[in-house]
Amino acid sequence: MPTTSSRDRCTVGVDFGTLSGRAVVVRVRDGAELGTAVHPYRHGVMDRTLAATGKPLPPDWALQHPSDYVEVLGRAVPDAIAASGVDPQDVIGIATDFTACTVLPVLADGTPLCLLAEYAGEPHAYVKLWKHHAAQAHADRITAAAHARQEKWIGRYGGRISAEWEFAKALQLLEEAPALYARMSQWVEAADWIVWQLCGRYVRSSCTAGYKGIYQDGTYPSENFLGALNPDFAGFARDKLADPTGNLGEVAGGLTPQAAAWTGLPAGIAVAVGNVDAHVTAPAANAVRPGQLVAIMGTSTCHVMNGDVLAEVPGMCGVVDGGIVPGLWGYEAGQSGVGDIFGWYVDNGVPPSYVDAAGGDVHAYLSTLAAGQPVGQHGLVALDWLNGNRSVLVDHELSGVVVGLTLDTRPEDVYRALVEATAFGTRTIVEAFDAAGVPVQEFVVAGGLVKNRYVMQTYADVLQRPISAIASDQGPALGSAIHAAVAAGAYPDVTAAAAAMGQKEAAAFVPNAAHASAYNALYAEYVLLHDYFGRGGNDVLHRLRGLRRGAGAGARQ
Amino acid sequence: MPTTSSRDRCTVGVDFGTLSGRAVVVRVRDGAELGTAVHPYRHGVMDRTLAATGKPLPPDWALQHPSDYVEVLGRAVPDAIAASGVDPQDVIGIATDFTACTVLPVLADGTPLCLLAEYAGEPHAYVKLWKHHAAQAHADRITAAAHARQEKWIGRYGGRISAEWEFAKALQLLEEAPALYARMSQWVEAADWIVWQLCGRYVRSSCTAGYKGIYQDGTYPSENFLGALNPDFAGFARDKLADPTGNLGEVAGGLTPQAAAWTGLPAGIAVAVGNVDAHVTAPAANAVRPGQLVAIMGTSTCHVMNGDVLAEVPGMCGVVDGGIVPGLWGYEAGQSGVGDIFGWYVDNGVPPSYVDAAGGDVHAYLSTLAAGQPVGQHGLVALDWLNGNRSVLVDHELSGVVVGLTLDTRPEDVYRALVEATAFGTRTIVEAFDAAGVPVQEFVVAGGLVKNRYVMQTYADVLQRPISAIASDQGPALGSAIHAAVAAGAYPDVTAAAAAMGQKEAAAFVPNAAHASAYNALYAEYVLLHDYFGRGGNDVLHRLRGLRRGAGAGARQ
Repeated sequence: MPTTSSRDRCTVGVDFGTLSGRAVVVRVRDGAELGTAVHPYRHGVMDRTLAATGKPLPPDWALQHPSDYVEVLGRAVPDAIAASGVDPQDVIGIATDFTACTVLPVLADGTPLCLLAEYAGEPHAYVKLWKHHAAQAHADRITAAAHARQEKWIGRYGGRISAEWEFAKALQLLEEAPALYARMSQWVEAADWIVWQLCGRYVRSSCTAGYKGIYQDGTYPSENFLGALNPDFAGFARDKLADPTGNLGEVAGGLTPQAAAWTGLPAGIAVAVGNVDAHVTAPAANAVRPGQLVAIMGTSTCHVMNGDVLAEVPGMCGVVDGGIVPGLWGYEAGQSGVGDIFGWYVDNGVPPSYVDAAGGDVHAYLSTLAAGQPVGQHGLVALDWLNGNRSVLVDHELSGVVVGLTLDTRPEDVYRALVEATAFGTRTIVEAFDAAGVPVQEFVVAGGLVKNRYVMQTYADVLQRPISAIASDQGPALGSAIHAAVAAGAYPDVTAAAAAMGQKEAAAFVPNAAHASAYNALYAEYVLLHDYFGRGGNDVLHRLRGLRRGAGAGARQ
Repeated sequence: MPTTSSRDRCTVGVDFGTLSGRAVVVRVRDGAELGTAVHPYRHGVMDRTLAATGKPLPPDWALQHPSDYVEVLGRAVPDAIAASGVDPQDVIGIATDFTACTVLPVLADGTPLCLLAEYAGEPHAYVKLWKHHAAQAHADRITAAAHARQEKWIGRYGGRISAEWEFAKALQLLEEAPALYARMSQWVEAADWIVWQLCGRYVRSSCTAGYKGIYQDGTYPSENFLGALNPDFAGFARDKLADPTGNLGEVAGGLTPQAAAWTGLPAGIAVAVGNVDAHVTAPAANAVRPGQLVAIMGTSTCHVMNGDVLAEVPGMCGVVDGGIVPGLWGYEAGQSGVGDIFGWYVDNGVPPSYVDAAGGDVHAYLSTLAAGQPVGQHGLVALDWLNGNRSVLVDHELSGVVVGLTLDTRPEDVYRALVEATAFGTRTIVEAFDAAGVPVQEFVVAGGLVKNRYVMQTYADVLQRPISAIASDQGPALGSAIHAAVAAGAYPDVTAAAAAMGQKEAAAFVPNAAHASAYNALYAEYVLLHDYFGRGGNDVLHRLRGLRRGAGAGARQ
């Protein structure tokens, strides 16, 4: 319950996305969103050339410029305050969430190396965005060594360390730019760096440390392990990573005068420990109790769920003590392509006649056509691995399959099959949690795809359970504002704040019993193909990937 | 060698296709095509409604009007003669070829039942076009009964009697319109009916009798067998089918005065025994020797090849004594979707940006983009069963599969994978012939797809052998003109006439050795998936077809 002192007080949540940052001003007593503003990153995603030099970047690179984040503080926050009509003096705290693992090398005072004149032309000095995928070889070495040495932490990550995470990206940095690696004082998540800018203190978030930094049971991978990867890497965790961590919802510090000047907020107000966009969404949907799985559905889907026990769920992305809220085990799973798959199809597979008939919204048009079909009428089943499989197979080298095409197959049929495939993928994740003893008791959706009622209804039918939907359409920013309220002392903990400020519509989508039953047959086909193509029955997807690389290599010669 | 008397003499070949008829005037001594004309069928294909009544037809029906064929004789033939500048008195023979099995019920004098006023509104009284597929259930019963009774002829048809053929369509007629069946004197292939119109005599072509009429070793299926299907069907072959057959290239009769009036040709000239469009193409390419496989590549592909021995080639469509030229075993195989698959993709899977960039010819644009890729770069492999598999699995209920899709997959990648899939399908057929002891010694292509050099080059690379190409772009009509020359006595047999009048470019497409070798890896993947999805490893394609039917039935309720 809100305390008397919190009435009419507000907090600010800032969500740092891939292309822009969004600030929202939220009333502490009930979570009402009073004003919002978005500011795009000046440099966007640098994945072709480095802005400072115009020089091309290698394939699979994705960089950002840290000044863009500070600019969001100086533009989006004041704009949101202005839009809300709130007196800045009524703002009692600020919190942020970020994409992750998005990480940068800094000096001891937090200065990004890319801001030093000597490194402005060095790509490795910039922020490596979550989707920088050029450290795959380094990740593979880490995974292989972990299994070879039977490191106990590898099981907490579904048996695989991602190329996106801190260690893989740092190992790439060491081996490709050793002088810069040596100059780097700390290897900092952007989620923590922005908090550092706000409060002047470096506090590692327990969320990013756990999910992206292999921080388990109070320790990092050993020097012995790291030295085996590369002798010069032995001290990495101790020297560049191991700073104090803070729990989610805790105060990292007070807003500095400089940050107060940027944002227009009062100096000294609470700045919360940093957080990750997916994880921070759970309280925004008031879904932080054990068994409440929140699926943040956008270009990809991230599933976060609290559990009161530690279980080994096969193929999860990670399980972290306090990873979502302090005191519970935070489970994370994911599907690496969802909205991206639908978007790919709309961009690459829909003919002009449909685009013309759609009149602007091809997704809506295809969804309407697809929604009218009886289950199974299209005669198709697909595997949703066009961007690999993050859970439960944890295999980025898999690819998509469409089965059952005929000369009668129409675009809405393929679209429907792709939507269903992602729903089947979700069902395998839910069933994995159920089977591992951390059952999913409520399925809650958030993210941009919630607006597509056809997609949501399909998920309800395929999952054969009601689906709750977050009430806010800016879940991460609201989730951050909730953390700000906790950090400011307005609520005793995140769970209490979520109950007052977060909101969801329970059972917003209810399965059609006949459709749900009919989907069992299609799901059985999905599972059969899933195991055949994904568990070694036919390793063709890996061989095709290999042929593709070989052909590419041949073509470059 | 042409005889002296044949110099400057000409023949006329008429090719009756699915939508129009084409006549060509050909010089007998060297096969030069002197003039041609096309006339479309007034009624086209009736697959939605019956023209006479406007009433809807059931699904899978496809009818034609026999008067349209006569109109072709009266329009296309005189137009071709006029275009050629030839004196009609120099024409010494005429021959025809037809789609098959395209079949109609007639009175004893050859009058189609649909021309009787009382039957003008009865769909069963019309010509059932080859692609009338509403007799599938009847075909399935025939196939099942043949296996149950171990009929020896079933092996000559790859173990399966098609829904397109004479017996299935006749059984449907009997059971759905018994009075009309009783009134019918003969069940006549359009290939033979048009010859009947030209010369006044009904002579069954040994080609259609063998491939479509289950006429083997001089007999039809027994009364006992037919009576087991339906007691009223026992006398079908004896009463409605068993008329004298004629060999290909033989004279069926002389041109009647009425047909002379229609065509403007001299009465009394030789009219050859009827033929089928695919089979008649072999002599037009001068490819009638044992081991010369002619692939007529269009919407689908038909493969015809002579052999000097009778072999059981698994999954062939049929083997008929004298089915292509008298004295040799004529083998037929096929792929039920080829150009149709490419067309389906262009119509249903190519986005506006590509269509715009293509500037009119999307096939050419995609072919150019696809041709530039190294083998395997797209990371895809597909199964070419979007219209079922005619050979070597002989399973119309199979469907297409695409494996290896990623968010980077572009339309030219899928197009290339589909082209390759049809080439892989061809390779399975060639390998089946080779393995059965009737080796393919030369692969010759004809048909509309020959013009696509990218497709042809892919076939050469995948088949790892040179491909010869027919010189004429109106192969069937030229093939008919060759038969007319034989019937008129200008050559002693079809083989001699083909040598003088037919023409191909040997090794028009030569495999790129590196590509051919690289394709082995992709072909191995195709074979693995082919057997998994096609030979019972995973019967998902049949189950999906069943779900589709069930969903359709549910939707109609």
